[in-house]
Amino acid sequence: MVTASICTIGDEILIGQIVDTNSSFISKELGRIGIKVVYMATCSDSKKEIISTLKHCLKKSEIVITTGGLGPTKDDITKTALMELSGSNKMKRSRKQLTIIKQILASRGIQMLDINLMQADVPQNCTVIPNKIGTAPIMQFSFRKELFAKDNLLFAMPGVPFEAEHALPEVIAAIQSHYKLDKIHHKTICTFGIAESVLSKQIEPFEDALPKNIHLAYLPNPTLGVRLRLSIYGGEDGNKVLEQYAAKLKAILGNNCYGEGEINLQKVIGQLLLEKKATISTAESCTGGYLAHLITEVPGASHYYLGGVVSYHNSIKINHLGVDTKIVKQFGVVSRQCVAQMAQGIRKKFGTTYSIATSGIAGPSGGTHNKPVGTLWMAACGPRGCVCNTLVSKSTRQINIERFAAAALDFFRRSLIEEKI
Amino acid sequence: MVTASICTIGDEILIGQIVDTNSSFISKELGRIGIKVVYMATCSDSKKEIISTLKHCLKKSEIVITTGGLGPTKDDITKTALMELSGSNKMKRSRKQLTIIKQILASRGIQMLDINLMQADVPQNCTVIPNKIGTAPIMQFSFRKELFAKDNLLFAMPGVPFEAEHALPEVIAAIQSHYKLDKIHHKTICTFGIAESVLSKQIEPFEDALPKNIHLAYLPNPTLGVRLRLSIYGGEDGNKVLEQYAAKLKAILGNNCYGEGEINLQKVIGQLLLEKKATISTAESCTGGYLAHLITEVPGASHYYLGGVVSYHNSIKINHLGVDTKIVKQFGVVSRQCVAQMAQGIRKKFGTTYSIATSGIAGPSGGTHNKPVGTLWMAACGPRGCVCNTLVSKSTRQINIERFAAAALDFFRRSLIEEKI
Repeated sequence: MVTASICTIGDEILIGQIVDTNSSFISKELGRIGIKVVYMATCSDSKKEIISTLKHCLKKSEIVITTGGLGPTKDDITKTALMELSGSNKMKRSRKQLTIIKQILASRGIQMLDINLMQADVPQNCTVIPNKIGTAPIMQFSFRKELFAKDNLLFAMPGVPFEAEHALPEVIAAIQSHYKLDKIHHKTICTFGIAESVLSKQIEPFEDALPKNIHLAYLPNPTLGVRLRLSIYGGEDGNKVLEQYAAKLKAILGNNCYGEGEINLQKVIGQLLLEKKATISTAESCTGGYLAHLITEVPGASHYYLGGVVSYHNSIKINHLGVDTKIVKQFGVVSRQCVAQMAQGIRKKFGTTYSIATSGIAGPSGGTHNKPVGTLWMAACGPRGCVCNTLVSKSTRQINIERFAAAALDFFRRSLIEEKI
Repeated sequence: MVTASICTIGDEILIGQIVDTNSSFISKELGRIGIKVVYMATCSDSKKEIISTLKHCLKKSEIVITTGGLGPTKDDITKTALMELSGSNKMKRSRKQLTIIKQILASRGIQMLDINLMQADVPQNCTVIPNKIGTAPIMQFSFRKELFAKDNLLFAMPGVPFEAEHALPEVIAAIQSHYKLDKIHHKTICTFGIAESVLSKQIEPFEDALPKNIHLAYLPNPTLGVRLRLSIYGGEDGNKVLEQYAAKLKAILGNNCYGEGEINLQKVIGQLLLEKKATISTAESCTGGYLAHLITEVPGASHYYLGGVVSYHNSIKINHLGVDTKIVKQFGVVSRQCVAQMAQGIRKKFGTTYSIATSGIAGPSGGTHNKPVGTLWMAACGPRGCVCNTLVSKSTRQINIERFAAAALDFFRRSLIEEKI
């Protein structure tokens, strides 16, 4: 299997000022064509560090992709490092890139300076892939097998994410024409409402019976739940085989599985509501608008989401959602009774097919022995009736809010497909 | 200067499914106590790769922090790798961590399984820092100088970001007690509503006149604005000197500055409202609950935030916020007139001192020539009256929503302190 390393260059990543998103999208694209990324590294804008890190990467994998340090200013020294690493004696000027640089500067009304001209200069021993939307060219280097014991290709790309994204297809094409590539397939199954350890116990027989070329990984996340990723390396009918194992896994998981691939609970709910030509509204207390935010994060949510009330203060619950004062006095606002009335109230008021409500204690303070910090009551309402559920999340205020909102979405999803509402 | 490397472990990062955010926040925190991060690496969940990468890191820097691969499932093998790397002959069970695991499982109503028990097991040659909010303990290893030519400390932390964030202060404390660290002071001045390039021009004379041991960094963020961080290295009265420069900077910035340090707009607004013993409500369209979420993210927001309406559908704006049908027909819902009525409507309905409203087009579709995707209208209302403003944000739906909500908060803040509302 052909392998790759990704090396991002830049002090701004090392000091934590910038989150490196280049590595993630480059590796996704490489994975798609059957290249396995085995290593990622970030080093500083220092010639010595760049050369040492690139050498380390060239020993680890056939392909090395590096981004950053190609700007026109003094702190950008990737090119100098690549001169030395590639054994180039001098620079050559790329005419194609020079033409592009002239066009870009003219369109921005910027005068051409020497430092702009020099951006078209590249080490002699490289092939240039012109960067059509930026001034820094993409450089491709080959290294003889004797050097790092591998048939290496190294690509240097600009660090600006949208320039790197734009240039990647041509880099991918160059890779595909150079190596004979195996296929790799992934399939992600998304679950919610089941702890990682319980899940692992539940699917243990399935996991133990997996063939050696299929790998299973657990990916936990507060709002996405635990996602299970199946990967298969090589083989002609890999995708088909993976489909079969994914189907088995989904059968074991039942309603704990809410979908596959790049999906989330709010998208799944959106699809369910669109299919039913139904509408929904929200009544929130502890989630404070985050539940509405998750729903409206999905483009096109206006087709099914009419709106909601954030009833943070009890007076809003009573005067605008119709919660009974007696209920508040007898059971408190964090109760099955209150959350049911909130959901019923908003459904009636906004005239929607369905509704979701939340009431709880996000923390850090508040809570009692019976209702500790992290307690959530949630309700889902529809033409068939209203159902409620509770949970306790032991985390920070921020994560509790996120978990609460996701749990309410999942509770609504289950209630809907189980025809309880 | 004491240096550090950060090594994140996990196939999910290498295949690009997850963006590594741990490295960024860990390096930020290390920078704060004067430790320089010189290298970051990501390797796969393979014992051989973990050991080889950690050795590489141990040679590069005194401190190595690794995250990931500590879960209860079979693909988590960081602990096995650390056994070998640290020369531990056997595992020992951490009683403190076991107690925490039992509490966490009990609170979630999950049965204790063998794999949960085993999470409390750590290599013999390590010191345990209990993980109070998760099941996997933090491990601290020391390596003799002879091994990697450095006085090394290695910390293994859970990969789940909020668990790693929670555990980091104790890791930082362990580092501070082990090494003699140079003093470094930082002061962050927070600005909003002024572009980085404009800001840079405005403070150019200030920046040019800074002494050599004071460094200024720009930290842009969609919801926090552009923060300016002043850092001073060494010196006994560093903090005092920094205070003086921060005061000069704030004088130049005026109302563009909303505070300093770990503050955000929603906290600033909360403080202003508490001082005035005033209350607030929200009426949102395009921000879909995110504005309410930002306000209620602050602990204690219930003291001033009564609630809000997410009026996603026009019928909600008309029937529940009192927006005039004629206004909608003549100016559209993304207009000064509509957003003013939304703010006035919610203020009256919920009986609050102040209110904020938003209406716009978050994208990716929608928009016209006069009102392109990214257009926002916002309003702030109070006893003195109602003011409106507009902006255009050219980004993704997600970032537009975040910018819109933050811009509305900032508009409210300025209107309040300038006594316009």
